[in-house]
Amino acid sequence: MDLLFLGTCAGVPTKARNVSATAVIEASGSGWYLVDCGEGTQHQLLRTPLSIRDLRAIFITHVHGDHCFGLPGLLASAGMSGRTQPLELILPAALHDWVRQGLAASDTFLPFELRLLAVEDLVEWRNDTLQVTTVQLSHRVPSVGFIFTELNPEPRLDIPRLEAEGIPRGPLWGELARGLTVQHGEQLLNGNDYLRPSRPPRRVIVCGDNDTPELLADAAQGADVLVHEATFTQAVVERTGVTFGHSTAAAVARFAEAAGVRNLVLTHFSARYQSDPRRSPNIDNVRDEALVHYSGHLTLAQDLQRYHLGRDGCLELTG
Amino acid sequence: MDLLFLGTCAGVPTKARNVSATAVIEASGSGWYLVDCGEGTQHQLLRTPLSIRDLRAIFITHVHGDHCFGLPGLLASAGMSGRTQPLELILPAALHDWVRQGLAASDTFLPFELRLLAVEDLVEWRNDTLQVTTVQLSHRVPSVGFIFTELNPEPRLDIPRLEAEGIPRGPLWGELARGLTVQHGEQLLNGNDYLRPSRPPRRVIVCGDNDTPELLADAAQGADVLVHEATFTQAVVERTGVTFGHSTAAAVARFAEAAGVRNLVLTHFSARYQSDPRRSPNIDNVRDEALVHYSGHLTLAQDLQRYHLGRDGCLELTG
Repeated sequence: MDLLFLGTCAGVPTKARNVSATAVIEASGSGWYLVDCGEGTQHQLLRTPLSIRDLRAIFITHVHGDHCFGLPGLLASAGMSGRTQPLELILPAALHDWVRQGLAASDTFLPFELRLLAVEDLVEWRNDTLQVTTVQLSHRVPSVGFIFTELNPEPRLDIPRLEAEGIPRGPLWGELARGLTVQHGEQLLNGNDYLRPSRPPRRVIVCGDNDTPELLADAAQGADVLVHEATFTQAVVERTGVTFGHSTAAAVARFAEAAGVRNLVLTHFSARYQSDPRRSPNIDNVRDEALVHYSGHLTLAQDLQRYHLGRDGCLELTG
Repeated sequence: MDLLFLGTCAGVPTKARNVSATAVIEASGSGWYLVDCGEGTQHQLLRTPLSIRDLRAIFITHVHGDHCFGLPGLLASAGMSGRTQPLELILPAALHDWVRQGLAASDTFLPFELRLLAVEDLVEWRNDTLQVTTVQLSHRVPSVGFIFTELNPEPRLDIPRLEAEGIPRGPLWGELARGLTVQHGEQLLNGNDYLRPSRPPRRVIVCGDNDTPELLADAAQGADVLVHEATFTQAVVERTGVTFGHSTAAAVARFAEAAGVRNLVLTHFSARYQSDPRRSPNIDNVRDEALVHYSGHLTLAQDLQRYHLGRDGCLELTG
């Protein structure tokens, strides 16, 4: 699984960072998933190899505009790209009418079926590759994190079972290995019943805005990657006295350390943290604050950077 | 008056061109007006000296998403910038509920009054500096052009009138020259009554999508600049057989020549016209087609380029 950050700024875009959007990319093939869709997400996609035709589903963490105002344009452009595959859009129910009305009022025709699902009602979303569930967070409005768990990663034939059931080695095994349903004597065999994952499934959590990282205590158990906002540093919150329902780098780092999170990715930085380390405050202040409390593998997300979760469980920058 | 193009592509953004938005900038001071607001307009503004606090009004030509999907984000960011001045937004009535619902559903608070006006009902919009009227165009949906006419440009004291009325030269003239109301004997004199423009007002027309340039025949009389879409070239329309309610460069150029338009600016180019002249079709094909029919001052708009309408009536690139 890869992560490609399309927007890593809080609230408003800057020249260096767009508002929130994160692509979760399948371990093999070209399928991908979008978490949040701030304005300009479709523009960022132009600067990546991701195709809107390979987008499997969109997940929106909460109603704030910097997480969803890119939806109308992204959907319209998906339509103009000739996409015909249905698209599932999981988002707060309060946004459903706005999405529908935007398409209708703008006379936008989508040549694919758009299925709107309420995130509040989501127990589990899945396809052949991934399961997605939610974890409730705490913000000024209801907000969730999305937990992506691989299903049956890199499947291999369950040879002990095949042998126990007396299914003879040969072309039949090849068909079952491809997941096909095949006739064997009077039996119909479903290939998926004879496939087993060859490695543990990876689990990645991509969170919406949240002022209480401890709400992730259960979800973070066994997760490979936690992507969490760090809108402010402690120093800034002490000076301004307000958090607007957001977390500090220190609070997230302390939680991640206590929960044993292996890879922590911070994102959604206030626009005040500048890229230039000679200016103050800057993004190094965020990193430095997190490193005081967290000894695992820390990443500060940057727009258009892609990270690969390797076989060794380490999250590495790939491009 | 200046024009600064924020988006010059039709339908979908490309790496080089954003979707539609054009800034019309007052001849003096920092006030400006936005015509259309495709997604990413606020991002483009970050790359200009224009401040969202100096934005006097927004005008939307028609309902299509590439002309309005940037509104929710622009308004939200205007709010976060601390703007308190009321903002008038003139747009098709069909979009009013969508704008309101987007702000409400996303829990966006605007610290300024947003006044929505229906473009269909607009007879005239004006402030101290400009008058804006509309001209009806022809497209797949109702579409207009906005005609910006300066009011009382570079006012100077009407000395013959002052002398005729026996108002004595002195500090009183200075106050009237600043437009103030002053007491003179038993009379109250309004400075604006004694100011006259020192040059003819400039008139700039910025059009929405339109397949019938001839609809501008009356409006174009005496206009200094006509900004019009040229989505396609004739060669492409002949091959595809469809215009989707758009104009070709040839049709707009022929009209502008016949109407005696002094400065013609083409914009809203199909994404197929590439910047690289070695590829086909490219933007030079659009220019070449227009030049066959038009002998005036032709400009092909580019994103983030600013053009100044000089005293000599010529539109010049300034940055």
